[in-house]
Amino acid sequence: MPTAVQHEAKRSLLNFFATALGGCRDIAVEHALSVVSPFAGAGQASVIGRHERLDALNAAFLNAISSNVFDFDDTHPGTVIHPSAPVAPALFALAETRRLTGRELLHAFALGVEVECRIGNAVSPGHYARGWHITSTCGVFGSAVATAKCLGLRGEQMLWALGAASAQSGGLIETLGTMAKSLSVGNAARNGMIAAFAAHSGLTGPEMPLEGPRGFAHVFGTNPDFSRISAGLGERWEALRNTYKPYPCGIVLHAVIDACLALRSSPGFSSENIESIVVRGHPLLGQRTNRPSVTTGREAQVSAQHSVAVALLTGAAGLEQYSDAAVRDPAVVALRQKVQVQDDATMTIEAAEVLITLHTGQDLNRFVEQARGGEQYPLSDADLEAKLRDLAAFGKSGCDPGLLIDAVWSLETSTDAGRLMALAVAR
Amino acid sequence: MPTAVQHEAKRSLLNFFATALGGCRDIAVEHALSVVSPFAGAGQASVIGRHERLDALNAAFLNAISSNVFDFDDTHPGTVIHPSAPVAPALFALAETRRLTGRELLHAFALGVEVECRIGNAVSPGHYARGWHITSTCGVFGSAVATAKCLGLRGEQMLWALGAASAQSGGLIETLGTMAKSLSVGNAARNGMIAAFAAHSGLTGPEMPLEGPRGFAHVFGTNPDFSRISAGLGERWEALRNTYKPYPCGIVLHAVIDACLALRSSPGFSSENIESIVVRGHPLLGQRTNRPSVTTGREAQVSAQHSVAVALLTGAAGLEQYSDAAVRDPAVVALRQKVQVQDDATMTIEAAEVLITLHTGQDLNRFVEQARGGEQYPLSDADLEAKLRDLAAFGKSGCDPGLLIDAVWSLETSTDAGRLMALAVAR
Repeated sequence: MPTAVQHEAKRSLLNFFATALGGCRDIAVEHALSVVSPFAGAGQASVIGRHERLDALNAAFLNAISSNVFDFDDTHPGTVIHPSAPVAPALFALAETRRLTGRELLHAFALGVEVECRIGNAVSPGHYARGWHITSTCGVFGSAVATAKCLGLRGEQMLWALGAASAQSGGLIETLGTMAKSLSVGNAARNGMIAAFAAHSGLTGPEMPLEGPRGFAHVFGTNPDFSRISAGLGERWEALRNTYKPYPCGIVLHAVIDACLALRSSPGFSSENIESIVVRGHPLLGQRTNRPSVTTGREAQVSAQHSVAVALLTGAAGLEQYSDAAVRDPAVVALRQKVQVQDDATMTIEAAEVLITLHTGQDLNRFVEQARGGEQYPLSDADLEAKLRDLAAFGKSGCDPGLLIDAVWSLETSTDAGRLMALAVAR
Repeated sequence: MPTAVQHEAKRSLLNFFATALGGCRDIAVEHALSVVSPFAGAGQASVIGRHERLDALNAAFLNAISSNVFDFDDTHPGTVIHPSAPVAPALFALAETRRLTGRELLHAFALGVEVECRIGNAVSPGHYARGWHITSTCGVFGSAVATAKCLGLRGEQMLWALGAASAQSGGLIETLGTMAKSLSVGNAARNGMIAAFAAHSGLTGPEMPLEGPRGFAHVFGTNPDFSRISAGLGERWEALRNTYKPYPCGIVLHAVIDACLALRSSPGFSSENIESIVVRGHPLLGQRTNRPSVTTGREAQVSAQHSVAVALLTGAAGLEQYSDAAVRDPAVVALRQKVQVQDDATMTIEAAEVLITLHTGQDLNRFVEQARGGEQYPLSDADLEAKLRDLAAFGKSGCDPGLLIDAVWSLETSTDAGRLMALAVAR
């Protein structure tokens, strides 16, 4: 594993712990925990940011949910997979039940990310466009392969792990903005582990789980491009393309928010003087986020109207701006109603344009080609540390973010990666 | 619930226990049990035919696998859903953790079957043809609704249960003939329970989990017909259409086997004198079962070539004929190689024709419009009792089939349906 890949893996893990600590007391996590607790096994593994311990499968399920619940986790451009949520929780839960070195965990993590993103590439963009929640549908392969790598599976057994993952892949875009989304993300982490353990046990699978006529790629995709799975494997790393969000909302809204934040300093701008606002973007932007009426913070995270309103009104787009209280704020409600989303098929999915017409008739507009946090403008290591500190405080776990940050940066020197989890739980 | 529906529910449960008892020591069940055991919670619920006890979710997972592992379970014509495997295990596991009367369980069972089959109707035939393992993909809705009914969910919460089920739906035809199939069937039972508990807890879901633009029907189906979900609900029962297999193999092969068994008594027939055999059927028959080379009993269950060979050679098509030993039998191997499958788009999926050319040049042929066990020729109550006795002996659980049969027939009088499970475990 090249040094750059190892460093990016640690950046991804910092961002993973940041968002899991931020989300660990969200209501969806509370519900999920209350659902599985009566059925959970021995307390083998930690639930990030909390004091409960669960069996490793359920811990992975919960930690995947926490890390993804605000959609504030990492994003692989092109596929819009959140790579860490299915993979990291599986590996840390595993590391609490069997000895893994930090180097082994980092290697398995990078391979899991590679596998899920490359499978995602093969079925993109049609797969997500049809309505598949790609983080869940492809994430289960990442969790399976990462876990299988740590179990030492090779050849036929690794293939069986992929087959067992294919049998468990699922998750629908229709659930985004509701808590049901979290179930498929949690399942991706959990069921990937099941897939690897099943293959290890000898549970057989199909010979061609991905490329068979009724295998994953043909059933979940249209005209899959298999070369995108294997081309340059081990030379070109998808893991190096991972990006981290400055805003806790759908990635397609980030350019919109950057445009709004920039527009606030335009001469003549005042939020009271806005007559109307038009957001222009790739048709997928409208499909995913044209939601003028939202009633919960969760739904607001995939609403262009809400994101524009809070960014213009408050000059920020943090977790507070996506709270239920922010959604009910009368000023936000009023401004949301002035926002229209227009499709422009000539624009890329990374770009967005925001046009504001003031009561005076003056027009302000801002085009953003790629948002902050995207591939061109990545968050720095210091940004990621700050994000972890902010979210650890937001999530009220009481864990010491400094110790956790240090442990992630030095993970490759650890002889027992599972011990890191003691720094990520409630004190 | 009409009396006829209640009676059919009991017939379905007899067949369910029969196939679960037959499958309870299959290698796929052993693997699945060894995978989940280290993570399982308190021994709340029974594993059919065995002595282990697991938490209710894992018990449902295992019992769904046992009942479906040989593909010897019930079949809803048209959708080819195996209705009981996802629903019955969820309800009996639930009944071991909270008091349910026999009447409540039977009612919830019939409703769960109704829901999964009607959702299946709405997306058939395109859904299965594309490659979805419909028992798993639709079964999770049956388990969710059956469990939700017992939890007393109504209105919005029932809708959330459907949404949580939609987020967990999955399963691929490519896995048929391998043990990985069992994971998706087990998940359907388990995850349907999770969906109901999640909705009960307050975990929200989409407003239109089935009919939304990126909901289940549009993403998993093509041009879904929603009227097939709701038309005649409560008047016409899909549960009454349930059928039970006399042979432990893919339902599409049953007419083929009936034809072969009939051909054995044709004048001039002798298995040594066979030059070649042609099986003609609907194109789906070929897609699913044209497997000339098989290496395991499991794979043989979806092989037309193997089914023809054993039926013609032995005059039977029971579990013994689908064992690994039968697959390796030199006479079977030799005869399989003489079988060709031909598509005939004018034939229905229920029908099949087998044409045998003898070395003498003589042709024998037999057309079967619908197989024994199908809607026109249902197994009798006595047939189902005999099937349960046979499979209980085959599975070597040592349970007393007579007591279990009596308990199923009198289930509506039980004040504690969970107690029945004590009669279905290993002694």
